[in-house]
Amino acid sequence: MKVSELGEFGLIDLLAKMVDSSPGGQASRQRLILGIGDDAAAWQGDDSIQLVTTDCLIQDVHFTLSITPWQELGWKSLAANLSDIAAMGGVPRYALVSLALPGTTEVEDVTALYQGMIELAQQSEVVIIGGDTSYAPVVSITITVLGSAENRDNYILTRSAARPGDEIAVTGYLGAAAAGLKMLTGGLKFDPEAMAYLGDAFNHPRPRLAEGQLLVKHGVRAAMDISDGLLADLKHICESSKVSARVEVDRLPIPPAVKANFGDRALELALSGGEDYELLFTAGAEVINRVKEAVSCPITVIGKIVAGEAGEIKLIDANGKSISLAQAGWEHFR
Amino acid sequence: MKVSELGEFGLIDLLAKMVDSSPGGQASRQRLILGIGDDAAAWQGDDSIQLVTTDCLIQDVHFTLSITPWQELGWKSLAANLSDIAAMGGVPRYALVSLALPGTTEVEDVTALYQGMIELAQQSEVVIIGGDTSYAPVVSITITVLGSAENRDNYILTRSAARPGDEIAVTGYLGAAAAGLKMLTGGLKFDPEAMAYLGDAFNHPRPRLAEGQLLVKHGVRAAMDISDGLLADLKHICESSKVSARVEVDRLPIPPAVKANFGDRALELALSGGEDYELLFTAGAEVINRVKEAVSCPITVIGKIVAGEAGEIKLIDANGKSISLAQAGWEHFR
Repeated sequence: MKVSELGEFGLIDLLAKMVDSSPGGQASRQRLILGIGDDAAAWQGDDSIQLVTTDCLIQDVHFTLSITPWQELGWKSLAANLSDIAAMGGVPRYALVSLALPGTTEVEDVTALYQGMIELAQQSEVVIIGGDTSYAPVVSITITVLGSAENRDNYILTRSAARPGDEIAVTGYLGAAAAGLKMLTGGLKFDPEAMAYLGDAFNHPRPRLAEGQLLVKHGVRAAMDISDGLLADLKHICESSKVSARVEVDRLPIPPAVKANFGDRALELALSGGEDYELLFTAGAEVINRVKEAVSCPITVIGKIVAGEAGEIKLIDANGKSISLAQAGWEHFR
Repeated sequence: MKVSELGEFGLIDLLAKMVDSSPGGQASRQRLILGIGDDAAAWQGDDSIQLVTTDCLIQDVHFTLSITPWQELGWKSLAANLSDIAAMGGVPRYALVSLALPGTTEVEDVTALYQGMIELAQQSEVVIIGGDTSYAPVVSITITVLGSAENRDNYILTRSAARPGDEIAVTGYLGAAAAGLKMLTGGLKFDPEAMAYLGDAFNHPRPRLAEGQLLVKHGVRAAMDISDGLLADLKHICESSKVSARVEVDRLPIPPAVKANFGDRALELALSGGEDYELLFTAGAEVINRVKEAVSCPITVIGKIVAGEAGEIKLIDANGKSISLAQAGWEHFR
């Protein structure tokens, strides 16, 4: 069978099973809290919980240089990883950057890439401490970020902690990055403010680090970041937590610039568009209210976790009627 | 300027300077022991020194599937990273595997790759705890390994600790991996034992983890692993330590299978051939003698560290005469 027939998630499942069923490494296993399958891996350090995550971005698969300039690419590559640490409620500390490039790449493009990364690293108090460079036919950027859970009780946010009765909430807005991508690839023209907002959402996402730390502090235990799209990522939470979800589509926080310029397609962008890097989390109503008070960005409740088939998501319209799940988040290889 | 004109090491220098001159991340910086430029990065954990290293292998740049089957590729990819931890005197704990593949790749090839990795991980007490998979036009494998320095005094082996008067020594043999590569790419035929030995040296290198830990225990402070070739890697040590080196070419431990089948070229393979993943280290004569007693693999003294121009290496023949440095280790991009 070809990898494309199995699909990305099928391949990950298969490889995770191989890894998890192999014996050995007892000392490392005893300290392991989370292996393959969450936003980051976690293990018990000498004192605090340690976190690590890695992400690989390939030219013309994950990014296109014609719509994401080098400096923004650097920012965005690091942001994707920091967002995974944010989704654990952790504090990022160190980054490693593995860069593969054609020999014909301009040196000033590579330094622009690093400027973008360094800018976000500085803002996030992260230090780049190593990496690797080599030749490749297309640009490939693999970043690894190390961090730790720095809350008193040593809690982390996982995908498996959602419970029936929890409210489902998101930080910020949904669909803006996907709308930005459509605008940039299609050469669409909107009013300047909307264009700046959507372009920024796609090329300059801000990982919700402070918010993730506040979530964990105020009692949230289940979260992940929205990188593949709300539906695909909520499905991950529901599968890991063995629960179902009801999403009230009228409550989705779709920004005005998306509604105004994408009309009927705005909902689809909010449901299935990836790369918003907002946090998706679940908790009891009381905890959600505490979070709303503590966090400076908008927090919107969009539905509820219910008992049911693991991973099932029902979409509910304004009249409480179930509507069809038009399209799930996209998947590599397929 | 193009990246190919600057060269791999020039590019690394440039990016390292950008990173090191950027402010911010004080908490992370205070704990940092080694950033960019050694075999692994190191920082002070809650108790022990923490280590991390990453390596990116690209199809037809770093490996060719026609001479390295998938399972051996998995072994070798992890071995390159474990060798970096060995070169710090550390104990590896966890690995992350970021895999990019064409969708047409056979699933059984990917599982063979993982079998090779898992086999070495088990032998090395390492657990694979995460990673990433995605589509790419060529196979690319980026592995990150985390470990720690587990000796009582919290020492690590660095490239910058060589001192004039130190003897230069290596573990095992030199040139076998490069000879194996020449044999496999050229379809050369030798006697079966030599073919098995050389093929194994190239496709199944054993990282010197136990040896690295014994080096640090017995007082060695300067080491790196030989991945780019003896001369290129010794040059790194001499540059970092601001010293020169004298290498007595007659003392190089060249295995009989290389001498017998490569004749006059054996010396060149031992000096410039990469991927042996042996440890190159320097220390006083007394320390070297203690190491020889403690370590089960051959330890060969091949020369001396002397005061002089940083990074200069002199080759000396059996009569004590200086000979020309035919060819340094290879470099990407050029």
